[in-house]
Amino acid sequence: MSRVVALCGGIGGAKLALGLAQVVAPERLTVIVNTGDDFRHLGLHVSPDLDTVTYTLAGRANPETGWGRADETWRFMAALGELGGETWFSLGDTDLATNVHRTVRLAAGDRLTEISRAVAAALGVRVDVIPATDDPLATVVETDDGPLPFQRYFVERRCAPRLTGLRYEGAEAARPTPETVAALTDAALGAVILCPSNPYLSIDPMLAIPGFRDLLAATRAPKVAVSPIVGGAAVKGPLAKIMAEKGVEPSPAAVAAHYGDLLDVFVVDEADADAPVVGARKLVAPTVMRSLADRVALARVVLDAAGLDAAGLDAAGPR
Amino acid sequence: MSRVVALCGGIGGAKLALGLAQVVAPERLTVIVNTGDDFRHLGLHVSPDLDTVTYTLAGRANPETGWGRADETWRFMAALGELGGETWFSLGDTDLATNVHRTVRLAAGDRLTEISRAVAAALGVRVDVIPATDDPLATVVETDDGPLPFQRYFVERRCAPRLTGLRYEGAEAARPTPETVAALTDAALGAVILCPSNPYLSIDPMLAIPGFRDLLAATRAPKVAVSPIVGGAAVKGPLAKIMAEKGVEPSPAAVAAHYGDLLDVFVVDEADADAPVVGARKLVAPTVMRSLADRVALARVVLDAAGLDAAGLDAAGPR
Repeated sequence: MSRVVALCGGIGGAKLALGLAQVVAPERLTVIVNTGDDFRHLGLHVSPDLDTVTYTLAGRANPETGWGRADETWRFMAALGELGGETWFSLGDTDLATNVHRTVRLAAGDRLTEISRAVAAALGVRVDVIPATDDPLATVVETDDGPLPFQRYFVERRCAPRLTGLRYEGAEAARPTPETVAALTDAALGAVILCPSNPYLSIDPMLAIPGFRDLLAATRAPKVAVSPIVGGAAVKGPLAKIMAEKGVEPSPAAVAAHYGDLLDVFVVDEADADAPVVGARKLVAPTVMRSLADRVALARVVLDAAGLDAAGLDAAGPR
Repeated sequence: MSRVVALCGGIGGAKLALGLAQVVAPERLTVIVNTGDDFRHLGLHVSPDLDTVTYTLAGRANPETGWGRADETWRFMAALGELGGETWFSLGDTDLATNVHRTVRLAAGDRLTEISRAVAAALGVRVDVIPATDDPLATVVETDDGPLPFQRYFVERRCAPRLTGLRYEGAEAARPTPETVAALTDAALGAVILCPSNPYLSIDPMLAIPGFRDLLAATRAPKVAVSPIVGGAAVKGPLAKIMAEKGVEPSPAAVAAHYGDLLDVFVVDEADADAPVVGARKLVAPTVMRSLADRVALARVVLDAAGLDAAGLDAAGPR
């Protein structure tokens, strides 16, 4: 019985993770999540991508923003603002609980992996949602305004400064977690899905962890990526802008080239049917996920591309 | 022009502090607050008495509980509970902001005094509300269940364990703040009011700070205390139970005796008109503060007892 691993960042990647969770039995699906966005804020350990994926899989994500929780309230932030505290990074009253809980448990010596699993379980998520590493890892965006911690660049500055480089601080000393290694070396691993997340901001921080790329290279399971660029633009976020600033044309071909020899299949949108993809088999499919049905359909496409029969994955089918 | 210092703990003391704030011009009133109740919880520095006094003077206190904020919501606590976090100590969504803000600023190296002043100012409080010390000070209750940090005893265990002793951890190494020293040595100091707070839990932690009792002894300003025991019972809280467990009859006389030679005037309620008070001049007055008018009336009584003419304190009068 095959197992599936998905690699993803936040909002865009979480959409496909949700689709996969509708098709693959939860005990067969592991979502390995970027922690390069994590940062210390208001004394709290904030893990935006882990939380976005967990909330999404729990059916608790804010459907309007994609991040944060549904039915959220903002009384904490308002009160903090009244006291002159920092309000540039929004933490809702219930989302705050996740961050406080994580910080308390980290301070008590628990690993981020254990905590993330416990949070997911408490919210009713049966899929395994884990960070790629338990070690500190922080994406730093080099800009013409100087180096900016990721969230300062992304949220506070709204990606306005021109990107001149990217660093993944701590990556050299980080190790993949035992759980990540186990998932990627599982004899039953049947597919590794690189969700349509930002390659520079969501996937590369994981690839920068020594040994992580080797784990991907070593598995015989097909590696299938979905292009986050559709029709020359990013489906969401600053990817197209970042590629342009790196001197790369924002195109599916450029994303495929970025991943190099890592991929077996690269899924491009129907809008990019003619995109020249080198180094991986090109597959054309609808990739823009507006509805839950879109997410499920794309999940079936990527599993099929990996040679997996969705029916053989104990599919519960679309809910 | 005379200045007034009030010493207090939380709820009971804050009532008289509010009365004083109606009568004394804000720039002439300093409220020095107990921090023996402070503790680290959920990674946050919680200062219950400072916040209660500040919220009360700001007109933001929860009128039903006396602690916490008015119009509070509890979504953070509910979400934390869902994750399996500790919920025995209630922190409302807006109250949480005060605690996070304080913790962030303490971590940045600011003093508790500066932070408390800034919080009070942000909430529109013009009275000076300061801790007696910026140094760590933690009341520990020795009980027949072993030693309990104050909030564990008070909130989690609801004062149920039998008290066998009290310790004020850190007191020996603590120093009164420069602001506290300045307030108590001000040449214009005209009265020191010991609010009807629990002497063991709210006043003694301050008196345990080396030099603090000497500052009180050295001032020529009259020291006026209000009995927190009325008719053999505590107006609020565990004082009567604690006195009984200490082998002391819960009576105004016993409270006065506890303060020893510190006081000039001891105000007892009309219900205790016959109480034998030794070591201080006994004054009989209504001390139970149900309404704002009660608080103002008692403020006028204690100021008058100190020989201060309320009209000469730039009284704005009851609002």
